[in-house]
Amino acid sequence: MTYAAATQDQLLAIRVNAGIEELAAHDRFAAAEPDMVEAIVEGVGQFAAGEFAPLNRKGDLEGAKLENGVVRLPDGYAEAYGHYVEQGWNAIASPVDFGGQGLPFTLACNVLENIGTANMAFNLLPTLSVGAIEAIAHHGSEELQQKYLPQLVSGAWSGTMNLTEPQAGSDVGALRSTAQPIEDGEHAGKYRIKGQKIYITWGEHELAENIIHLVLARLPDAPEGSRGISLFTVPKYHVAADGALGPKNDLRCVSLEHKLGINSSPTCVMSYGDSDECIGELVGQPNRGLAAMFTMMNNARINVGNQGVQIGERATQQAMGYAKERVQSARAGSADRTPVAIIEHPDVRRMLLRMKALTEGARALLYYTAGHVDRGTLGDAVGAARAEVLVPLLKAWGTDVGVEIASLGVQVHGGMGFIEETGAAQHWRDARIAPIYEGTNGIQAADLVTRKLGLEDGQVLFALVDDIARDGADEPALAVLAQECRTIAEWMRGEASLDDRLAGSVPFCTMMAVAVAGWQLLRQSRAVADGAAPALAATKPVTARFFLDRIVPEAVGLRAAATAGAAGLYQLDSAALAG
Amino acid sequence: MTYAAATQDQLLAIRVNAGIEELAAHDRFAAAEPDMVEAIVEGVGQFAAGEFAPLNRKGDLEGAKLENGVVRLPDGYAEAYGHYVEQGWNAIASPVDFGGQGLPFTLACNVLENIGTANMAFNLLPTLSVGAIEAIAHHGSEELQQKYLPQLVSGAWSGTMNLTEPQAGSDVGALRSTAQPIEDGEHAGKYRIKGQKIYITWGEHELAENIIHLVLARLPDAPEGSRGISLFTVPKYHVAADGALGPKNDLRCVSLEHKLGINSSPTCVMSYGDSDECIGELVGQPNRGLAAMFTMMNNARINVGNQGVQIGERATQQAMGYAKERVQSARAGSADRTPVAIIEHPDVRRMLLRMKALTEGARALLYYTAGHVDRGTLGDAVGAARAEVLVPLLKAWGTDVGVEIASLGVQVHGGMGFIEETGAAQHWRDARIAPIYEGTNGIQAADLVTRKLGLEDGQVLFALVDDIARDGADEPALAVLAQECRTIAEWMRGEASLDDRLAGSVPFCTMMAVAVAGWQLLRQSRAVADGAAPALAATKPVTARFFLDRIVPEAVGLRAAATAGAAGLYQLDSAALAG
Repeated sequence: MTYAAATQDQLLAIRVNAGIEELAAHDRFAAAEPDMVEAIVEGVGQFAAGEFAPLNRKGDLEGAKLENGVVRLPDGYAEAYGHYVEQGWNAIASPVDFGGQGLPFTLACNVLENIGTANMAFNLLPTLSVGAIEAIAHHGSEELQQKYLPQLVSGAWSGTMNLTEPQAGSDVGALRSTAQPIEDGEHAGKYRIKGQKIYITWGEHELAENIIHLVLARLPDAPEGSRGISLFTVPKYHVAADGALGPKNDLRCVSLEHKLGINSSPTCVMSYGDSDECIGELVGQPNRGLAAMFTMMNNARINVGNQGVQIGERATQQAMGYAKERVQSARAGSADRTPVAIIEHPDVRRMLLRMKALTEGARALLYYTAGHVDRGTLGDAVGAARAEVLVPLLKAWGTDVGVEIASLGVQVHGGMGFIEETGAAQHWRDARIAPIYEGTNGIQAADLVTRKLGLEDGQVLFALVDDIARDGADEPALAVLAQECRTIAEWMRGEASLDDRLAGSVPFCTMMAVAVAGWQLLRQSRAVADGAAPALAATKPVTARFFLDRIVPEAVGLRAAATAGAAGLYQLDSAALAG
Repeated sequence: MTYAAATQDQLLAIRVNAGIEELAAHDRFAAAEPDMVEAIVEGVGQFAAGEFAPLNRKGDLEGAKLENGVVRLPDGYAEAYGHYVEQGWNAIASPVDFGGQGLPFTLACNVLENIGTANMAFNLLPTLSVGAIEAIAHHGSEELQQKYLPQLVSGAWSGTMNLTEPQAGSDVGALRSTAQPIEDGEHAGKYRIKGQKIYITWGEHELAENIIHLVLARLPDAPEGSRGISLFTVPKYHVAADGALGPKNDLRCVSLEHKLGINSSPTCVMSYGDSDECIGELVGQPNRGLAAMFTMMNNARINVGNQGVQIGERATQQAMGYAKERVQSARAGSADRTPVAIIEHPDVRRMLLRMKALTEGARALLYYTAGHVDRGTLGDAVGAARAEVLVPLLKAWGTDVGVEIASLGVQVHGGMGFIEETGAAQHWRDARIAPIYEGTNGIQAADLVTRKLGLEDGQVLFALVDDIARDGADEPALAVLAQECRTIAEWMRGEASLDDRLAGSVPFCTMMAVAVAGWQLLRQSRAVADGAAPALAATKPVTARFFLDRIVPEAVGLRAAATAGAAGLYQLDSAALAG
């Protein structure tokens, strides 16, 4: 199965939905002029397709393996990561002061989109490093920044996020790992870290020379719950003041999870301080660790929503390739009984167009969201607030449609789709993690109907749906959907109880996401009609129409579920419900 | 994870939706009186939960293995299958003349439901045998029936279906296997079978003493396409006139597929006649093999739709069990900050109730369909015709919701859901085959909008939706859905082209299925209100309301997709679409 990056559609989304030219009009992002943008998008697309896509199936088959405390990746991963670092792809949006290029987040999203479409499991390595960079850049001391950022920005070192413990999943505040201040000696001013963390993505490996773990733990006498959590850097190898690598820190990968998918991404159980000699340094203020994590959370959630786009693109290309080659049955009702490629059959076309329309819709939403993050960076408070509302939509719906697209991909393959050698099943298995991690999609929807719905007394969300209603006034289904979203939001901010809001949160989140994605596709379609992307002049009107005419009305059908309220959910007590 | 059969809900569905008392009022099914029905449903539920459920995870982990031509199953499978045969569960609905109990198909569905809920992969063994029994019972000569049926009915021998070849999947007419008449010698009057078949479920194993393969092949000079296909029995071991097992036939399992799920169900590539000595016997008339297969197809498709119910029940029980044990976070908005079991959180409740409502809706549709098959057996032409319409609804929607329920099950488990040890992921992987085999769900939908929509000039389908509209007149959403189904059906029979119908077939099929399932849940709910099932008095009104208030309106939202037509699908030629 050959795979080629979706360069033209990415460029369109970066221009129309992210508004890269507006961003580049500011000094901060002046480097993002059109030639640079095209060079990045084309370059990383070719690089990813050439070096990472061929490793995807191999990575699934062989997976990551823990041998005597060392995590082994399939042959080829180390070389490909080395080239990724050498070519500078890790440094696109990182601070210029530490070797980054300081380009818009939008372009970093594009790097991840391309690497992840080629190889979703591998892409988690740079994705997690981004989080570590942001945590240290925003909250770390000057010393920490100097010590860690240059190598993290280049990718020579990688980073991890350590939040979850067995009893502390969605409720991070329940974690029990500890950090003990060190008064004297070599490590005075630092902390002894102790605890076990689970689900640590790329927690151990040898592709990078060092791994900087960002670990949440409790200081002595810290308040209970989420207000007593502090953030620490814990390096795999100690780092001397001159940057030289020292001895190994007291931490280890205890085991790897046996997962449904993303098999070449090692998901580690990490143990810190088995010998009470695990040394970490505080990032930011004591007991403010969760707040520090929150500053990264938006971008991390965007990067996971991005994974829906990634798997969607890959699964769509695979299904298209199969459907145009596989010959089976004549066209129904045709006098010519010659069997045709299945892409000619109406329902296969429906599936393929749905895959393509959902992928392009999710991509439009991705870059629309990323563009607003960049507006926030430029000091645009309105843009930043809109990004806040968009993030849960992208994370939840983007990852849900990633699974749906991959499932359609399996279906297009028929019996072959269920055979692992085909590769369609891998995309479906890989896709399934994205609705779970970085805050389950239920938590995204809860965020939407609580914190995000409350921003500026509801005006941030209302302004968004009003923009859709105005811009989409000529599109009957979209206009209805936008109006329904407003009505539901008003109900949620009015008579609905908190439980009522939460009970309808997931369907409402889907409605909002489909409305924004449909609107952004409409904007793409108009731009293409105005000559924005000649290469897409034939296809974009078709996928946009499919989305607006078939997918948008489905979302309207979620209205009843969004407003049904909580009473029906609590009529049975838990014993009666669970049986 | 403990698992218990859904005995009470099954009994309710067998009474209300299948109408077992009406069936038992006929001499043919007089044995199906209430005590017998309860004994079967309770008995097989306990047997399956006790003997097959504990093998499910082991079967997934170890899978079926081909070793020197012999397929090995995990320890315990042979014993459990032996007990299944000994206790007579295989013989429930088979002809009395050959040792069967001659009970309604409805009760055979219940046996499969219970065995398959316990272990979906194992359940395919008896499911495929049922097809072989029906083929021989309806089309085989007296001699073939005497030779094969007693042992197939008891389960001492198993059966398979051999349709697919690499170039002949959905288009069975493209198959190339051959059958050469034998003029002289020991096998005079029989046929030499030659060819390779793929996707042969339980094509080779040693749980049964013999395997009777039903094989489609072409006679010399047979017409091309589907009118030149004949059906043959091809035993693994030759069977003498006195029933004694003879030497092995010239057939073998070449390889097993490496699949996404149902790992303990060996999916074989079968080779017949490598040495030109594979002997088979004709079943029915020459060149009428496909017609013979069609007589089994309805029941086979019902048995696959049943698998959606099976996986739905199992996944729901697993998620309920996890959600009432897993403690995480306090209730939102509650002054009490004590963490609660996640079953108390609104969106987890929504997921659990959706799982339960979909499972019960699919079960109601299953038994409603099975009951109509039994009416057909009793000579009720109206009932038989309605069954024809119901079958694609059950097969397509039942299996789609099987996947959806299993996916919700993964989601309820959060990060644990992605870890294979939890078991939730296995249900999701296992479920994914059902929308594909026995006619993909796209083919079911095509059957609905072509052959089934045309039955008696549309009156069979119109009578069904009119019954729903009348009986559900007090339920606003259901009444709207029934009306929409009628309007779409009228459009499809009127101005819509064949391509338009096919383009809208899948959404229309879903709308129809949800309408029937919602209606049948409503009937259950009314029966429970009248005292039909005291054990379900608390839960049934809640699940029925959830379905009617939240799931039915979603289906209404598919109207636009059902009627959007084919023009948009063919605006791009295949090269432009596939890129």
